[in-house]
Amino acid sequence: MILKPIGIIHSPFKEKKDSPHQGRYGVETSEIEVFEEYSEALDGIDRYNHLIILYWLDKAERNLLKVIPVGKSKKRGVFSTRAPSRPNPIAFSLVDLLEVNENKLTVKGLEALDSSFLVDIKPYWKDIDSIE
Amino acid sequence: MILKPIGIIHSPFKEKKDSPHQGRYGVETSEIEVFEEYSEALDGIDRYNHLIILYWLDKAERNLLKVIPVGKSKKRGVFSTRAPSRPNPIAFSLVDLLEVNENKLTVKGLEALDSSFLVDIKPYWKDIDSIE
Repeated sequence: MILKPIGIIHSPFKEKKDSPHQGRYGVETSEIEVFEEYSEALDGIDRYNHLIILYWLDKAERNLLKVIPVGKSKKRGVFSTRAPSRPNPIAFSLVDLLEVNENKLTVKGLEALDSSFLVDIKPYWKDIDSIE
Repeated sequence: MILKPIGIIHSPFKEKKDSPHQGRYGVETSEIEVFEEYSEALDGIDRYNHLIILYWLDKAERNLLKVIPVGKSKKRGVFSTRAPSRPNPIAFSLVDLLEVNENKLTVKGLEALDSSFLVDIKPYWKDIDSIE
């Protein structure tokens, strides 16, 4: 199962220490640049205010099965945490779409490090993607 | 960017025509079998009622950039749809966790075809993963 980089994320977070613990709480905006060869796949994206972004955590440790979650003292399995360290380091982020300019999307709520590779963009549908 | 299959999904949906259009509306349960070598990463999962599941859509067409969404008549870019056809065919599903039995999770709300490969499991956190 091989993923293709379909774009790159330009963000104000150059290092892990700069990025918010969870992007949803941040006010900074990031720019998602979709590579030209995939820009046609953005058609219709402007009808959504919220998007699901999948991106690659290239600095993650893939062989850790347990980690100590932020703010905790005891190790836990990585599937019960949102730690970047996991066998397949794909991050999931729900973002606000602020602007679309050709193949560039300005978004808020992303905590991706600068230059992270984009994996997928999906529209957020409240009725299937949230639970009260 | 290479993904490792970390488990396999056993579901009642043998073919695309059997599966619900969106799993959240279904009542069927599926079993997620995490491969033994990753079972330690499940530690602590039983504290959650809802999980985010990422899985691989192995039958998806990866070179389509536009599709006609279900129930529509006009083509649209795949990033503005939830169609399985997309450059990186990773499905995202929010499911109810019903039971944990060692390395097997019984869940509701998944629309994965039987034998789909599991890519990741994350806890669902309402405050960051949903928007009113």
